[in-house]
Amino acid sequence: MGDDGTTAGEVGTAPAPAAPEEPDVLRDIESRTAAATDWSGHRPDGLPDGVVRARSVDDVVRTLRWATATRTPVVTRGAGTGLAGGATAGAGEVVLDVRGLDRLVEVRPDDQVAVVQPGVLVADLDAAAAVHGLMYAPDPASAATASVGGSIATNAGGLRCAKYGATREAVLGLQVVLADGRVLRTGRQTTKGVAGYDLTALLVGSEGTLGVVVEATVRLRPRRRKQATTSAFFDTVADAARAATAITRAGVEPAVLELVDAATLEAVDAALGLDLRARGAAMLLAQTDGAGAESEGRAVLAAVSPWARGVETTTDPARAAELMTARREALPSLERLGRAVIEDVAVPRSRLAEAVAGIEEISASTGVRIAVFAHAGDGTLHPVVVVPPEQDVLSGAPWDAACRIFSLAQRLGGTLTGEHGVGLLKRAWLRQELGDVSMDLHAAVKAAFDPLGILNPGKAIVDG
Amino acid sequence: MGDDGTTAGEVGTAPAPAAPEEPDVLRDIESRTAAATDWSGHRPDGLPDGVVRARSVDDVVRTLRWATATRTPVVTRGAGTGLAGGATAGAGEVVLDVRGLDRLVEVRPDDQVAVVQPGVLVADLDAAAAVHGLMYAPDPASAATASVGGSIATNAGGLRCAKYGATREAVLGLQVVLADGRVLRTGRQTTKGVAGYDLTALLVGSEGTLGVVVEATVRLRPRRRKQATTSAFFDTVADAARAATAITRAGVEPAVLELVDAATLEAVDAALGLDLRARGAAMLLAQTDGAGAESEGRAVLAAVSPWARGVETTTDPARAAELMTARREALPSLERLGRAVIEDVAVPRSRLAEAVAGIEEISASTGVRIAVFAHAGDGTLHPVVVVPPEQDVLSGAPWDAACRIFSLAQRLGGTLTGEHGVGLLKRAWLRQELGDVSMDLHAAVKAAFDPLGILNPGKAIVDG
Repeated sequence: MGDDGTTAGEVGTAPAPAAPEEPDVLRDIESRTAAATDWSGHRPDGLPDGVVRARSVDDVVRTLRWATATRTPVVTRGAGTGLAGGATAGAGEVVLDVRGLDRLVEVRPDDQVAVVQPGVLVADLDAAAAVHGLMYAPDPASAATASVGGSIATNAGGLRCAKYGATREAVLGLQVVLADGRVLRTGRQTTKGVAGYDLTALLVGSEGTLGVVVEATVRLRPRRRKQATTSAFFDTVADAARAATAITRAGVEPAVLELVDAATLEAVDAALGLDLRARGAAMLLAQTDGAGAESEGRAVLAAVSPWARGVETTTDPARAAELMTARREALPSLERLGRAVIEDVAVPRSRLAEAVAGIEEISASTGVRIAVFAHAGDGTLHPVVVVPPEQDVLSGAPWDAACRIFSLAQRLGGTLTGEHGVGLLKRAWLRQELGDVSMDLHAAVKAAFDPLGILNPGKAIVDG
Repeated sequence: MGDDGTTAGEVGTAPAPAAPEEPDVLRDIESRTAAATDWSGHRPDGLPDGVVRARSVDDVVRTLRWATATRTPVVTRGAGTGLAGGATAGAGEVVLDVRGLDRLVEVRPDDQVAVVQPGVLVADLDAAAAVHGLMYAPDPASAATASVGGSIATNAGGLRCAKYGATREAVLGLQVVLADGRVLRTGRQTTKGVAGYDLTALLVGSEGTLGVVVEATVRLRPRRRKQATTSAFFDTVADAARAATAITRAGVEPAVLELVDAATLEAVDAALGLDLRARGAAMLLAQTDGAGAESEGRAVLAAVSPWARGVETTTDPARAAELMTARREALPSLERLGRAVIEDVAVPRSRLAEAVAGIEEISASTGVRIAVFAHAGDGTLHPVVVVPPEQDVLSGAPWDAACRIFSLAQRLGGTLTGEHGVGLLKRAWLRQELGDVSMDLHAAVKAAFDPLGILNPGKAIVDG
């Protein structure tokens, strides 16, 4: 029976459905300006028409029913820390801000599960898990400011994903409001489960184009109490990459394995008055964790030593924090040199040195300053393009350099985006990476979820 | 330009497409009988009309083009070890047997990646990884006889999934032939990557309803050299479950954590002349691995001891194999007592003891013998229904008992299938678990991939 007392079969006698109630749309310039862009630096044409600040699942349902009835394009927005323009919104669009759905519903330590709303910050979820000796494994660098909802929308990665998986591997189930306002539940509370298609994984990383996540059931894992941290300096990036391979060959699976290039070391030196660059032209930081952390730390030390100029392993947390400085301060140090845009290409791990060399070439030939640090454990590189504050990063030589980097990654058998998403900025390289058949299927899957095309139109899965 | 020299726009002048070539369809009774069923024990109505034994991707493409042109339903088949009837085929259907695509294309140890065709056996893939000190983590009990393709179609689990993930977590990319013969590539060679929807995860576990996997790029991980194995006996299943929770609370993540009930212990005793049942009414087997295996083994020992009647931890491989006997020999021992059908419900881990108690009640009230062993680390239970050889398992009291178990698992917040799939046999419980909105979306996604509905019709995602 429908709400109005008719059954689905009684089409002839049913009254026309009432026009859905309009949600509370903020139309002031300030709200619309604040909701127009994200951390990508992209400025859309004009401002969104309005902003809905949802505080409940019902608010989201009401907004999407209204949007469907009025054919209004909706851009869902979390904390706005996205780097690919996925949450940018312009004229003709309404922003659905879900930060107000910020309840950490429950942590069930014996099931190693938490239930959260999308507005909870990633770091707050992890902190809630920590109370029970558990961790939420995905650790994007933006964890302290990024929302769980946004991290699900982009399948956010982080440092320790090579060992513990990205956001997709941590999400067991979702509650999602579809474009027409229907509420979909996907997945389950259990670690395993194979009833039906994996719609959970399909929604993770879909960048707001398939539905609006209003609740997530996520997996927690035991928090590792022990850690061993190794820092090593090398004459060349190629040597650092060889050392990373040697760690792999030794059978060690570090939780963190970061490579830092010379340009980054120089920036950190300039910012903090250190002399890291004098110690080598590349640095590797490895962290092993868990009950075997110490013996694995020794294995890392042995593996990298033949290639390294200097190497140190510690289990002391204070010293470990010092060793990690170069990585932790990399982006802030580069941002002191100008406007910095961070990319996220990924390549097969054996191609890491080639990728860094290729990026250095691109920097030299375009005259654009590019520093690189990388998750060597999973082949994700973060080339940081730095330009003077007054220059636009998304056009001219800087953007040309970024585009060449995307192509380079694809040529090396990798991807143009390892963990930030396609958003608005990388659409031009999508078809080349996915192929025509895949692009056709993406459109068909999109139509299955959102036949009117009102959810984040023009982003993530279409040619740009 | 099309193959015939026309462009897509020149519809008016293009000749009608030639009828697709018919593939080599075996029509003899022997081939059709061998391809009609799997290990579920289900007997479909009649025999499939024919069998295509594909030896190449081209064979698969040709078969599906022909099937699309002739609207012939196609049931894709691997090694036929499925337990849910997903690969059974009857009158009006043609079986596409892909065991002949059995090439292990490459192992790239430094990338920790392997590329395989679907006919490779799971154990053979793991053995190829072992040569390089690596492992293929998913370890279904049928690994020695199950094909990689079938394990992808069902998102197969296994003992060590709680720590290392199921098949979905191990598959990085796929090459898939779609219903109309187009070849789709999904995913990538890198651990991370977020360009486009996660069609890889959507295809894993889709039980042959969305496409035919002809190649998979899978992730390998370092093979763990060290292991510590603990066996513990308890007065009750509830105590064993409490001990499993105590391991969780101790922050240990065992690679293997198996619970074995009294009925299973009795069967193993009867088969092997042991006295396990005299030592307790439930048994827990825990295996920690990696560099911290030994210290984690001690932590397991300390965690379970307060609940246990007897407990032993060893790092000696021979003794470990002895301790694992009860689990390894569980199914063979139960199969000596009659026809055994193994189910695979899953519940949140904290509900494990309730689930076992509920199954014992179902056994008592239906008079059907049911033994249980479980992956306590992820809440997956294997209730084994044992009937006299002449009795049908899939009807009458035995099937009634199985159905009650499915409902029990759903009532406890779990799923009717943790790792075997829905196939043909569990469709009646699917809507109850997924809900109407999800069922609608499943149909829409299916239509996006297979608009004519020729791939494994009537299985996995539809009401039965």
